[in-house]
Amino acid sequence: MINIGVIGYGYWGPNLVRNFSAIADAQVSSVADLDEERLRLVKRRHPSIEVTTDFKALLANSEIDAVAIATPVSSHFGLALEALRAGKHVFIEKPLTQTAEQAEQLIAEADRRGLVLHVDHTFIYTGAVRKMRSLVDDGELGDVYYYDSVRVNLGLFQNDVDVIWDLAVHDLSIMDYVFHSKPTAVSASGMNHIAGNEANLAYLTVFYEDEFIAHLHVNWLAPVKIRRTLVGGSRKMIVYDDLEPSEKIKVYDKGVTLHGTKDNEYSRRIGYRAGDMWAPKLDDAEALHIAADHFARCVITGERSITDGQSGLRVVRLLEAASQSLKERGRPVKLGWKGRGG
Amino acid sequence: MINIGVIGYGYWGPNLVRNFSAIADAQVSSVADLDEERLRLVKRRHPSIEVTTDFKALLANSEIDAVAIATPVSSHFGLALEALRAGKHVFIEKPLTQTAEQAEQLIAEADRRGLVLHVDHTFIYTGAVRKMRSLVDDGELGDVYYYDSVRVNLGLFQNDVDVIWDLAVHDLSIMDYVFHSKPTAVSASGMNHIAGNEANLAYLTVFYEDEFIAHLHVNWLAPVKIRRTLVGGSRKMIVYDDLEPSEKIKVYDKGVTLHGTKDNEYSRRIGYRAGDMWAPKLDDAEALHIAADHFARCVITGERSITDGQSGLRVVRLLEAASQSLKERGRPVKLGWKGRGG
Amino acid sequence: MINIGVIGYGYWGPNLVRNFSAIADAQVSSVADLDEERLRLVKRRHPSIEVTTDFKALLANSEIDAVAIATPVSSHFGLALEALRAGKHVFIEKPLTQTAEQAEQLIAEADRRGLVLHVDHTFIYTGAVRKMRSLVDDGELGDVYYYDSVRVNLGLFQNDVDVIWDLAVHDLSIMDYVFHSKPTAVSASGMNHIAGNEANLAYLTVFYEDEFIAHLHVNWLAPVKIRRTLVGGSRKMIVYDDLEPSEKIKVYDKGVTLHGTKDNEYSRRIGYRAGDMWAPKLDDAEALHIAADHFARCVITGERSITDGQSGLRVVRLLEAASQSLKERGRPVKLGWKGRGG
Amino acid sequence: MINIGVIGYGYWGPNLVRNFSAIADAQVSSVADLDEERLRLVKRRHPSIEVTTDFKALLANSEIDAVAIATPVSSHFGLALEALRAGKHVFIEKPLTQTAEQAEQLIAEADRRGLVLHVDHTFIYTGAVRKMRSLVDDGELGDVYYYDSVRVNLGLFQNDVDVIWDLAVHDLSIMDYVFHSKPTAVSASGMNHIAGNEANLAYLTVFYEDEFIAHLHVNWLAPVKIRRTLVGGSRKMIVYDDLEPSEKIKVYDKGVTLHGTKDNEYSRRIGYRAGDMWAPKLDDAEALHIAADHFARCVITGERSITDGQSGLRVVRLLEAASQSLKERGRPVKLGWKGRGG
Repeated sequence: MINIGVIGYGYWGPNLVRNFSAIADAQVSSVADLDEERLRLVKRRHPSIEVTTDFKALLANSEIDAVAIATPVSSHFGLALEALRAGKHVFIEKPLTQTAEQAEQLIAEADRRGLVLHVDHTFIYTGAVRKMRSLVDDGELGDVYYYDSVRVNLGLFQNDVDVIWDLAVHDLSIMDYVFHSKPTAVSASGMNHIAGNEANLAYLTVFYEDEFIAHLHVNWLAPVKIRRTLVGGSRKMIVYDDLEPSEKIKVYDKGVTLHGTKDNEYSRRIGYRAGDMWAPKLDDAEALHIAADHFARCVITGERSITDGQSGLRVVRLLEAASQSLKERGRPVKLGWKGRGG
Repeated sequence: MINIGVIGYGYWGPNLVRNFSAIADAQVSSVADLDEERLRLVKRRHPSIEVTTDFKALLANSEIDAVAIATPVSSHFGLALEALRAGKHVFIEKPLTQTAEQAEQLIAEADRRGLVLHVDHTFIYTGAVRKMRSLVDDGELGDVYYYDSVRVNLGLFQNDVDVIWDLAVHDLSIMDYVFHSKPTAVSASGMNHIAGNEANLAYLTVFYEDEFIAHLHVNWLAPVKIRRTLVGGSRKMIVYDDLEPSEKIKVYDKGVTLHGTKDNEYSRRIGYRAGDMWAPKLDDAEALHIAADHFARCVITGERSITDGQSGLRVVRLLEAASQSLKERGRPVKLGWKGRGG
Repeated sequence: MINIGVIGYGYWGPNLVRNFSAIADAQVSSVADLDEERLRLVKRRHPSIEVTTDFKALLANSEIDAVAIATPVSSHFGLALEALRAGKHVFIEKPLTQTAEQAEQLIAEADRRGLVLHVDHTFIYTGAVRKMRSLVDDGELGDVYYYDSVRVNLGLFQNDVDVIWDLAVHDLSIMDYVFHSKPTAVSASGMNHIAGNEANLAYLTVFYEDEFIAHLHVNWLAPVKIRRTLVGGSRKMIVYDDLEPSEKIKVYDKGVTLHGTKDNEYSRRIGYRAGDMWAPKLDDAEALHIAADHFARCVITGERSITDGQSGLRVVRLLEAASQSLKERGRPVKLGWKGRGG
Repeated sequence: MINIGVIGYGYWGPNLVRNFSAIADAQVSSVADLDEERLRLVKRRHPSIEVTTDFKALLANSEIDAVAIATPVSSHFGLALEALRAGKHVFIEKPLTQTAEQAEQLIAEADRRGLVLHVDHTFIYTGAVRKMRSLVDDGELGDVYYYDSVRVNLGLFQNDVDVIWDLAVHDLSIMDYVFHSKPTAVSASGMNHIAGNEANLAYLTVFYEDEFIAHLHVNWLAPVKIRRTLVGGSRKMIVYDDLEPSEKIKVYDKGVTLHGTKDNEYSRRIGYRAGDMWAPKLDDAEALHIAADHFARCVITGERSITDGQSGLRVVRLLEAASQSLKERGRPVKLGWKGRGG
């Protein structure tokens, strides 16, 4: 049984408290937030949890094994670094940090101290995304051609990040988890339509070392909510609609076939293939519950988290490159890294 | 009553013959095609129409007032130029030509001879697109923020053009017709997944002189057919779904409102507004019928076509810029023109 | 401020506790349930609420003004009668009772004592149903032709009632509230496919004194969840889809028009009319919150509840007639009452 | 190669001419219609086909092997009887006749003369319905519980039949083909909202000798077009949506399971099961083409048609019972027949 302290009880913090309270191997003993009103809410809901406006008190508490950080992105690096230095395992909201350099520092600090650093890329723990990964790994799709995601709705405008850092971060973590090609460059275009704010609409193209390509449309100013991803492959294709109540993943046995490659006449060369469609039953356990459970096990066993600091770093690198490209109206920005674990 | 000769009786030609035969002011007297099999089909369906494998015979026929050209893009310039030189009015498939320079030459030739040059940007004549234009012109949307279109399906791969020239051309002509901002640059990314072919998937971003931005996703390798466009404005927003049998245009009274601009606290500054949704009744006459009728009237009265050579040229300029950017993985390519009529 | 005691903390009870706790004019002071496990859950969630396994203790408590009853239907009559005799106002789950006679007894008891008897027909308090009523009342639909509802899904099988008493009760209360015609007969067909259970699928037709007709399909064994109602009128028609996240009510300006009534030729007599579709913005406040608030106001002011005992009785009479018809494979069963307030 | 004469060139006749012209083993040599305007249209479209206003001339033509009858229902019996007496095989629109007695007479006449009598229940020849039958026959659904169909839209009001004879006839033929239980009684309710017309909205329940039950909602006055059928079974369930462009049939691995039958506590007895969903690839050949081909083969080989007179008779018997029940507001009307082939 590990003791968790939660820092930040705003929009997401209550979900962390609820889920860490519900798993077998952990309990939430303290919550820190700057806003006393939020702390009173904690006490009403969970009379046994300690509350404080001073997160340092929480870090100083030797009975706390790990902290879960759900604060604005700009505070992530400072809080996580202090927590690691205080010997606490860290579960932190996405994106991990504001810069790749900060992420690397946190990874180094956690590694040096043998502590778990887990980024809350929650989608990785959904049944839908895990199913997509297994379909890709099992070769069901054949060669994977593209990942195309539309993630749009009206609001919520964030005040310290633009729509890419708020919404595209989900897709970048999914892509990092599901596919195995290495991204080489990012092109991003976008626009800010509301005075005094960051970009509220953006398009990202991510290029890979092979013919795989990914594209994201993220938008806080759309009339309807859409969460739909197309994944194209040489053998099969996927439509992943996260708003579908049950059949979130549909696998289409569709594609093209090439005939007579030496034939000059085009019309004889490409055939269209359409077979069954199949919507596999998905594990519908709450993703955050599974993530909390996974984190607790990592703390207890020393196992590495699926969404560790490295995965958080890879995502931040893509976000940084996207921000750079956005400023230059879509000029492709190369990624200098050496890939996974590089 | 004008006499029409149709050149090309492949995929689209039969629609031209059918629609020009159905309008009051025109009749189709001849069809030319290289393929005798296709000509036999013409005779079976329309015993009274003359057929020939030699389009020159058709141009030499002094009883023919106008030609409708439905041949591969690579032949457009040559055929249209000869037709104009033979004194025929020209109705030509989209895109007008393969290069802007060719388009300019055709425009000059038509103007010099006082002939109608009409590009078959059919969508402009649909009830849905005309309604979008009137909503924009009447200020219903307020400031127009973006046009976002997804036009994807499985096939049909074209042999002489890529997916941009085949599918994005529709959106570029719609944008040209509906909006009044001047495009300044294009960024395009894409990929070719089928050996020996042009790009089968592409993303275009079109930048404008103001904060308006447009984006297109076109794809021949998608598991499902999607034809959906979002148009965002400061007052209202549109969802245009061309696959809806009846409510193709939905107008959402949604948006954000700004409060207390000097206030530091972000959460008080942006409010979300959601009102009624409204799907206006659209004229559901066949677009090609209306276009054919419009062309015939232009020939008879000397009126200028809504989709004249200039509109065809503006679209070709965007296509050229997109092709250039595609080669450079999304580098934004500036548009050198001086805008409409420039 | 009135004090509420809640009897029954099973599936629905927690919603009652949460909503009565959230309104301004009431507080929940006690909860009774036979299951001690459920009572421990109450204490964990709401430490200040008293709990008891003996509902009589709750009725004996003079500080409690009103009780909210959320127990199986078979216990409704007994509990409500005792509560009224103990001088408590009563908020009770639907259906009010198992027989019309029981309902009449409760109404008489409440009237004699000047107590509020409110049936929890929650749908009446949704924005969608209130909008339907105002559309009907304002004459927007013209003559109302029919109400057709499909309310199907997989589960939850109930153990003391069949699918009519479980699901059709919602539609019967909506019909009672929205329309003003008097029902005259009911025909019901259905089937029980699972050994040892009540009907899990049923069809009800309700006939009215005029040409209005209503029909319900309720089903616990359907592969998909559907909550869709069509309302036909001479001027406009409604599609009410309760699963739509935002546009639950769509109003279609569609219908037929009659021409030349004396004309023998049918084809000239009926014309089809299709105009705009319109989805009005709905109040999306939680219906149970509004109902709780309404109940508290009725207790305080003596106002009559919109869903009073009489409305509960009218619904039970239809349910009784449906059960009778179901046994006779759809034989229409006449309703003997004298209508509203009769 | 057989020669077909088509009687009636109104709404459906052109489809018969087109499809019988397209199959290998038949050709259309004559068309009869009372309306000379329609006959001129035939000549424009098919110059080689003979036309006549006198169907008797067509029957007298010894070169014609078979007639296809596409006239109003009220004329079916007379025309088909004369055709059979003239020695012609008969392909006839649905419903076969206005009464079961008439149908029996036609069957007897055809049998006596060894002629093919084929009813155009076109849906039987669709890929979707054939797939449903094979799923049922292969036991994929387990015990079949119910067939529930909604077939509604705005128009087209018919002048000689009500909505049951116009629309429910499709479902009755599908049920006859797909399921093997014997219907025992019919209950029908409906309403006529447009003065001087037959019922424009109706509900049919068909009872069977076992626990299978079928229900149809047919409506000419609905704001939206719906063609959706649910089929429930003990092992799997089907949603058949005929308006879906590609996945018309979806098979759900869903249902309930019974545990511990002796257990008193209900909540432990029923479990809900949800597995994969699967949309099989369907044959998308035009149903009428397949039907025409099947008819021609029956004529040539003497094979019995899948939709022979007996199947037409079974459907007419259900229609007659439905009409009777409709008059009595849903009173169940027993079917007196002895079942298939009885």
